[in-house]
Amino acid sequence: SSDAGAMESVMNCADGQQASSMANLWSNKQESSRTQKAKGGFVLVHAGAGYHSESKAKEYKHVCKKACQRAVDQLKAGALAVEAVAAALVELEDSPFTNAGMGSNLNLSGEIECDASIMDGKSLHFGAVGAISGIKNPVSVANLSHFITIIAGFFSLSAYKRNKRKMELAERMDTGHSQTKKRRQSNENENGSGCLDTVGAVVVDLEGNVAAAVSSGGLAMKHPGRIGQAAHYGCGCWAENARNVNSYSTAVSTSGCGEHLIRTMLARECSAAMQSEDAHQALLEAMQNKFISSPFLASEDRVLGGVIVLRCCTCLEAQSSQNIQGKLVEFLWSHTTESMCVGYMSVQDSKAKTHISRLPSGTVPGQSLAIEGGVCRLMGVTE
Amino acid sequence: SSDAGAMESVMNCADGQQASSMANLWSNKQESSRTQKAKGGFVLVHAGAGYHSESKAKEYKHVCKKACQRAVDQLKAGALAVEAVAAALVELEDSPFTNAGMGSNLNLSGEIECDASIMDGKSLHFGAVGAISGIKNPVSVANLSHFITIIAGFFSLSAYKRNKRKMELAERMDTGHSQTKKRRQSNENENGSGCLDTVGAVVVDLEGNVAAAVSSGGLAMKHPGRIGQAAHYGCGCWAENARNVNSYSTAVSTSGCGEHLIRTMLARECSAAMQSEDAHQALLEAMQNKFISSPFLASEDRVLGGVIVLRCCTCLEAQSSQNIQGKLVEFLWSHTTESMCVGYMSVQDSKAKTHISRLPSGTVPGQSLAIEGGVCRLMGVTE
Repeated sequence: SSDAGAMESVMNCADGQQASSMANLWSNKQESSRTQKAKGGFVLVHAGAGYHSESKAKEYKHVCKKACQRAVDQLKAGALAVEAVAAALVELEDSPFTNAGMGSNLNLSGEIECDASIMDGKSLHFGAVGAISGIKNPVSVANLSHFITIIAGFFSLSAYKRNKRKMELAERMDTGHSQTKKRRQSNENENGSGCLDTVGAVVVDLEGNVAAAVSSGGLAMKHPGRIGQAAHYGCGCWAENARNVNSYSTAVSTSGCGEHLIRTMLARECSAAMQSEDAHQALLEAMQNKFISSPFLASEDRVLGGVIVLRCCTCLEAQSSQNIQGKLVEFLWSHTTESMCVGYMSVQDSKAKTHISRLPSGTVPGQSLAIEGGVCRLMGVTE
Repeated sequence: SSDAGAMESVMNCADGQQASSMANLWSNKQESSRTQKAKGGFVLVHAGAGYHSESKAKEYKHVCKKACQRAVDQLKAGALAVEAVAAALVELEDSPFTNAGMGSNLNLSGEIECDASIMDGKSLHFGAVGAISGIKNPVSVANLSHFITIIAGFFSLSAYKRNKRKMELAERMDTGHSQTKKRRQSNENENGSGCLDTVGAVVVDLEGNVAAAVSSGGLAMKHPGRIGQAAHYGCGCWAENARNVNSYSTAVSTSGCGEHLIRTMLARECSAAMQSEDAHQALLEAMQNKFISSPFLASEDRVLGGVIVLRCCTCLEAQSSQNIQGKLVEFLWSHTTESMCVGYMSVQDSKAKTHISRLPSGTVPGQSLAIEGGVCRLMGVTE
C-alpha cells in the first residue's frame, strides 16, 4: 500500500520565535487510516550536513532514498529497529558520494580511516569503531563490537599499501572528470568543509524500539588515527527507549564538524531535549543554547553541524479504541551548515521522500539554523 | 610552612542516609590561618579503585604521595591547574605499581596499550589518546593533542617486537619474586579485576581554575585497539570552571570498569551533581542513582567504579574582609569497589596525606558504596 496518509511534513525555517505545533497537526490527522492493516516502522536518514550544490542534489537524494528502502525492507521482514538502522547505514556507506565507508576521505598518509557507531534504544547498548581501515562497512563492525568497545587503528602495512595503490590507480584513471574527486574539490572550494558529509539514520519499529547510527570517513587530510564524533559515545548517535509511559523514545544522529559535535555531546543533548512537550521548540532551543551558543565552543566563530531526530510515543487517542495500537512519531532535522540532505519513509509508504534543507538566504552558516520536520503515525494490526 | 590548619578530613561510610555537612565544618575553621602568606592550590590523586591488600598499601600510598608533591611543586612555581595535574599524572604513570604508563597491563598480543585524557576547566579544552603504544607518558601526549583529537593506534611492528622482547626478558628475570607480576596475579586472584587500577588527579589553583586527568593501561588481556573510559570524553575525567559567581568550579577523575564508566558518563554526571548545595549528599546520590542504579547498567549485577571529585568557590566569609582572597575547596572520593587509594595535599602542607578507603565490612562490592572527603581553604596573599 502506498498510503502515507498519516505523514505530513512541516517546513519551517526557524528564526528563534517560530515553532510549529506538531501535536495539533497530529490531532487533525488522527481520523485517517484507522482500518489499515500494516506493519509499522519509520526511518529517517541523512547524507550529511555541509554544502550540497544543486548539481549534486540528485545523487544525494538517490542514496538517501535507497537507504530508506533498505531499512523499510528490514522492518517489513520483522527486523528490530537496530537491525533496520544498520541496513540503512550499509547503503549510505556503499555510496561513493558520501564521506563514509568506500567513499571516505583520505587521511594525510593517503589511507581511508573510518569511524562509526550504533546504539540500540532497547538494550541501551552502544558499539563503536574508530580509525579503522580496510573495512567495507564500518557500521557492521560497530554493530558486532558487543558493545561499547571501540576497536581502533586496525592499521596494517598491507592495507596501507593496498589503499595507496588504489589511490594511485584512481589518480591515473582520473582524466579530469572523476566524479568523486570533483565532488570533494567542489565541496572544499565552496565552503572549505569537505569533511562534513558524514551519514546517519534513526529508526523506530512498531514496538516503539528506537535505534540510531552514524558513519564517517573523517576529515580529508586528517592525521592518521584521529577519531571523530562518529565513534564517540553521546556525540555521533544516541537512542533511548521510553523508560515509562510518560516519556518518549528518542533517537538522534549527528553530522558536521567533529570537534563541535564532541565537545557539546550533541546527540545526547538533543535526545534529552526531546523529552520536552514541544519537540520542535525543544530542538530549536537545544541547537541554539547547547550548540551555537555552547560555552564549550565559546572560542568558535562558526559552529557547524546538523542533526536528525525522532521521538515516538504511544498515541493516547488510539488507546481509547481497543482495536488499534498506534504510535506517534515526530521527526525533525536541524542544521547550522548551508544545507543538509535527508530522506524518510514509513513502512506504509511505497517510496521515500527526500529533501535538501537549506539555511534561509542571507543567514550566516555556523551562526543561524534551519529546522524542519513532520509527524507520522504508525498503525498496529486491527482486529 | 607546614600549617594545614584549614584542612580537615571527614570520614563517613555512607549508608544512604548519613551525610556530613562540610559547610558547617568549614565555618568552624574559618578563623584559622587568616594572616598566612602562601600560594594557593590543592591536589587530590588516586591510584585506582579496585582492591588494595594491606601488603601493597605502602607502595600505593607512596606513589600517591609523590604525585601530590609533584603537583604542589608545580603550583608553587606558579603553574596553572592543568599543568599541575599533568605533572601528578606523569608521576602516577611512572610507577610500576599502577596500571598506567610503564606499569600497564599487557593486551592479548603482549603489548602495552594506554589510554589517557586531560581536561582544562578554564578553556574547557580536552585532549585524549587511545590505545597508544611505546609512549612513556600517555598523559603528556593527551595534553599536547590540542585538544579533543584522539590519536589512536600508534601501532608499529617495531614497538610490538620491542615490547615482546621486554616481556620475554622480564619473564626470564622473574624467578618467582617479581613484585609487579605478583601484584597482578594477586589482584586477579583476589577479586578478578586486575584491570581496575587506573590513576587520576584533580587540581585547583589559587585563581580557582580546575583541571582533571586520568590514565590507564586498560584491561589485562584486552583485545588490541580497545579504548577504555580514560580516553572517552565525559567518562574518564571532567573539569569545568565556574561560569558565574553562583556556581562552583568542579573537577572529577574516575577509575573502575571501563564499560560501566563510559555508559554512565560518570565523570560528567558527578561534575554536574556538584552544583548542588550539599556536595557530600550530591555525590552520594549521583553514585547511587546515576551509577549503581543507572538504567544504562540495568543488566549488570555489580557496578564497579570510583571517583575523586573536588569543587571550589570563592569564600563568602573571606569576601567581607578586603585583605583576603580565599577559596573553599571541598574534596571527596567515592567507590563501589573493595577499596580506593587516594592522596591529597594543599600548597600549605609540608606533605601529602594518603588513605586507602574501604567498603564497610559486610557490604557487597558493586552494590554498595563508600564516600569520604574533606574541606580545604586556599588562602590568597594578605596585604
